[in-house]
Amino acid sequence: MVAATPDPSVAEMIERHQDTLDRALAAIESRDYWSPYPEFPKAYGESGPADGKAAFDALLGKVFAIEGQPTNGDLVAGEASPYGIELGVSYPHAEADDLVAAMEQARPAWAQATPAARAAVCLEILARINARSHEFAQAVMHTTGQAYGMAFQAGGPHAQDRGLEAVAYAYAEQVRLPRQATWTKPQGKREPLSMVKEFTVVPRGLALLIGCNTFPTWNGYPGLFASLATGNPVLVKPHPRAVLPLALTVRIAREVLAEAGFDPNLVCLAAEHEGGAIAQVLAVRPEVKLIDYTGSTSFGDWLEEHARQAQVYTEKAGVNTVVIDSTDNYKGMLSNLAFALSLYSGQMCTTPQNLLIPRGGIRTDEGTKSYDEVVADLAAAIDGLLGDDARAAAILGAVVNPGVLQRTVAAAAGEYGELALTPRVVESAEFPGATIRTPALVKVDADKPDDRTAFLGECFGPVSFAVAVDSSEAAVELLRRTVREQGAMTAGAYTVDEGVEAALVEAALDSGVSLSLNLTGGVYVNQTAAFSDLHGTGANPAANAAYCDGAFVAGRFRTVQVRRHS
Amino acid sequence: MVAATPDPSVAEMIERHQDTLDRALAAIESRDYWSPYPEFPKAYGESGPADGKAAFDALLGKVFAIEGQPTNGDLVAGEASPYGIELGVSYPHAEADDLVAAMEQARPAWAQATPAARAAVCLEILARINARSHEFAQAVMHTTGQAYGMAFQAGGPHAQDRGLEAVAYAYAEQVRLPRQATWTKPQGKREPLSMVKEFTVVPRGLALLIGCNTFPTWNGYPGLFASLATGNPVLVKPHPRAVLPLALTVRIAREVLAEAGFDPNLVCLAAEHEGGAIAQVLAVRPEVKLIDYTGSTSFGDWLEEHARQAQVYTEKAGVNTVVIDSTDNYKGMLSNLAFALSLYSGQMCTTPQNLLIPRGGIRTDEGTKSYDEVVADLAAAIDGLLGDDARAAAILGAVVNPGVLQRTVAAAAGEYGELALTPRVVESAEFPGATIRTPALVKVDADKPDDRTAFLGECFGPVSFAVAVDSSEAAVELLRRTVREQGAMTAGAYTVDEGVEAALVEAALDSGVSLSLNLTGGVYVNQTAAFSDLHGTGANPAANAAYCDGAFVAGRFRTVQVRRHS
Repeated sequence: MVAATPDPSVAEMIERHQDTLDRALAAIESRDYWSPYPEFPKAYGESGPADGKAAFDALLGKVFAIEGQPTNGDLVAGEASPYGIELGVSYPHAEADDLVAAMEQARPAWAQATPAARAAVCLEILARINARSHEFAQAVMHTTGQAYGMAFQAGGPHAQDRGLEAVAYAYAEQVRLPRQATWTKPQGKREPLSMVKEFTVVPRGLALLIGCNTFPTWNGYPGLFASLATGNPVLVKPHPRAVLPLALTVRIAREVLAEAGFDPNLVCLAAEHEGGAIAQVLAVRPEVKLIDYTGSTSFGDWLEEHARQAQVYTEKAGVNTVVIDSTDNYKGMLSNLAFALSLYSGQMCTTPQNLLIPRGGIRTDEGTKSYDEVVADLAAAIDGLLGDDARAAAILGAVVNPGVLQRTVAAAAGEYGELALTPRVVESAEFPGATIRTPALVKVDADKPDDRTAFLGECFGPVSFAVAVDSSEAAVELLRRTVREQGAMTAGAYTVDEGVEAALVEAALDSGVSLSLNLTGGVYVNQTAAFSDLHGTGANPAANAAYCDGAFVAGRFRTVQVRRHS
Repeated sequence: MVAATPDPSVAEMIERHQDTLDRALAAIESRDYWSPYPEFPKAYGESGPADGKAAFDALLGKVFAIEGQPTNGDLVAGEASPYGIELGVSYPHAEADDLVAAMEQARPAWAQATPAARAAVCLEILARINARSHEFAQAVMHTTGQAYGMAFQAGGPHAQDRGLEAVAYAYAEQVRLPRQATWTKPQGKREPLSMVKEFTVVPRGLALLIGCNTFPTWNGYPGLFASLATGNPVLVKPHPRAVLPLALTVRIAREVLAEAGFDPNLVCLAAEHEGGAIAQVLAVRPEVKLIDYTGSTSFGDWLEEHARQAQVYTEKAGVNTVVIDSTDNYKGMLSNLAFALSLYSGQMCTTPQNLLIPRGGIRTDEGTKSYDEVVADLAAAIDGLLGDDARAAAILGAVVNPGVLQRTVAAAAGEYGELALTPRVVESAEFPGATIRTPALVKVDADKPDDRTAFLGECFGPVSFAVAVDSSEAAVELLRRTVREQGAMTAGAYTVDEGVEAALVEAALDSGVSLSLNLTGGVYVNQTAAFSDLHGTGANPAANAAYCDGAFVAGRFRTVQVRRHS
């Protein structure tokens, strides 16, 4: 439940959140660690987890009403918990025409609000979402399959961080021009020419957010808050299997907007059955001027091709690579990689897929290790990490959907190549119906055409490839080529050789992928921290945008000038 | 001629131009008047005009060599001075493949230069262009038809201002992230996690500038310098009738780049015959990642449709409107409008085309004036302004090309409607072969379908329409509709009524056009000042970008991050 809040004026919201906004603006410049949203579950009170669970349970088996939003009376439902529990939440369906009409009506007043007012409303929305992080954790867990700890952090505070980061960038971009300026041009001995000029931010129009199955909030909040903070209404079209986290978000946003005196239809939910086509219909509506999308390459390409009336920000598929050249911390490298490959069953767009290892072996602090030894040791590290079922479940989470499960089956059957590590079924004591699998590690050779076919396409889920390559130089070139041709959200490398490191950095800059070097501790290649790390680059086929930079927000509004003599 | 400059290192260029860059960065924030490039011809020395003329004359009738740039040995020529003098300049032609290959080879070193180095090189280029402003004035005059005074200012210092403004925005955008940052995340009682993160600007790739006939430098420099300053090579494809100003620009840019130790092929010229198709070929090359275009709507639309691999910035056709509701300075209004309509024979993308006047007349400081009176008085004001042929020529310039001339003939023949002012031929004593025409003012009625057809399409050149409308409210709605449907680079209005003014501002914000109110002195609706006024908005069909804002530069590069433990 939302804590009862006295109907706050926008001015009150601005005052309440000014410090947070100021600190966020400083953080995106310094890039040091910062967050206003604690990532430790205990920070949310003793009863936080239980309260969140109770709030979540109260949603199950019911219609998720969204008061005041258009509906055609139909209900849609299609979520299935990867943990096997019955959800039974259904959502009101609405016709595209009705949604668009309601949002167009809501649009002008929000467009006329100041950037400061919009930022404050967004921060109030985020604060209320933050207070309910345990409830969101349950919703994220049971739609994405993320383990509770990850669903709490990545689906809660870390997603909120990304939302706040987008608000900060949006605010900064909107106030680069003064609201009003005087212009005085000397005219020699004559009176100077003198003008007063007013600069007004003009939002682009209706924004469409198309959510994904695995990270509905983390991947959804940057676009949602970037568009909203720049004055555009946002229509949220969740993935049919991950509606609840975004439905909660929409409901909270509507509550705050209404309290601030705005039309709650500035944020609407477009829920639909799996296989529905409302995204295609909405994406080409002339009113839709902004689209944020995370998902498959095929639909991302379709959007870029067909939604020509809109600015389209996409995050699509990619193939992430780690180059293993050498290390001075072999054990640290293995445990870091084991965790990176296991976390959320490899179902992150940032999880490494291909580990490139010279077939002649690598130098380590424990002596030279052959390709086979590295692969066996990594397999053992993963085995060790996931040996205990309870611990394994807490790291792996559950398999998000049947498509991913099918790939684990194919991998286990040896369809991708020789297995260095065979996936196994993990039983959950808490959730007997959970679908949990340990990762597969497949041995392939960069010189074998069949192997290349297997590892050079995206194999989303708990399947990675230990790719034997001729040399570290060959690994660097394969990294470069993979990023250029397949796209990548992340790249990693281990090396103690300055020459190899320089070549890796050059290849990363050249192909346009961010690089994590020699991670051996508590930072993983698949994790990026808001306010500091960029998520994606927009410079390779995996995404045309990054969270978050000036380019992500600058196109979401225009500036109109009015000038007159002073 | 370029002043002999001691081979300066990039460091020297940075030092030399630091103050100018700093002041430009301050100017784009304050939006007050500022320019480092004097707009008075006399500021360039007693012999400046003669030296510029001599330098220009030395180019005529010759091959314009571009040392070191690929060529297939062919020469192209097609410029014809609107002043009737023989130009006879021919330019080396090159195959698209060869140009792209040379520029791709030049690309990496420029991409690796720092934003500060690139800004300094760009400012050195601009400084050398500035020193040759009188030579550029001749080149602009005899390709565009602008009168010398305007060719000097708009083609010289004002274009240089726009280039510098783009460099300032590009620099500011590239340094928003620190080059390096530390990130320290507390871990309770454990050691904090600590990382060093490096952020590197990665330019997008080859940029293509497609120039226009009327303002080759003013409209070309923003894109050219925005792309170059963000690390992208720029291939300059001038309009076949306005090559020389951009050819001079390319040659100077190449000289400076070479002196700074870079490959001069970072800036190349792609000259072609009129009717050639090299722009279409280049625009869809996979290497081309950025396109800046000014010109017809049809080719702009083609670029947006087909050059999908590139970010495309377009300025296309539009219909500019002035609403005349009331004024407290009737004479000032008439003289301001007369000049705005006459300047460069209405051949500015910012010239008003439609003047909306209530058929019941307007309130003025000289009493109520009927529609017919306003039109007659405006016609008289234009007649008075252009009564003397020498003065007329200095304001009108010459007709840029046969297409525009044809429209003046059609207007004179009454094809667009009843003439309130009939165009006449102006003779130039200095240039007997000059094609100079005074503007046509056509009386039309907003309620007549035939008239609407005439005035609601772009009629580029010295033809304006005095449109009788039912009321000021109807005028505001027609303004809104015209901007939305036809696009507009400018809008103007005269009113002393607060309600009408509020409605005008609302319509301007809603339709996305900048508005000039009650201009009665030395500022004209068709002029925008760099560092203060935005040129275009990107919010209506006339353009998808504005000179200059964050959105114009933010998409020209990406940021790649490298992180490691500290």
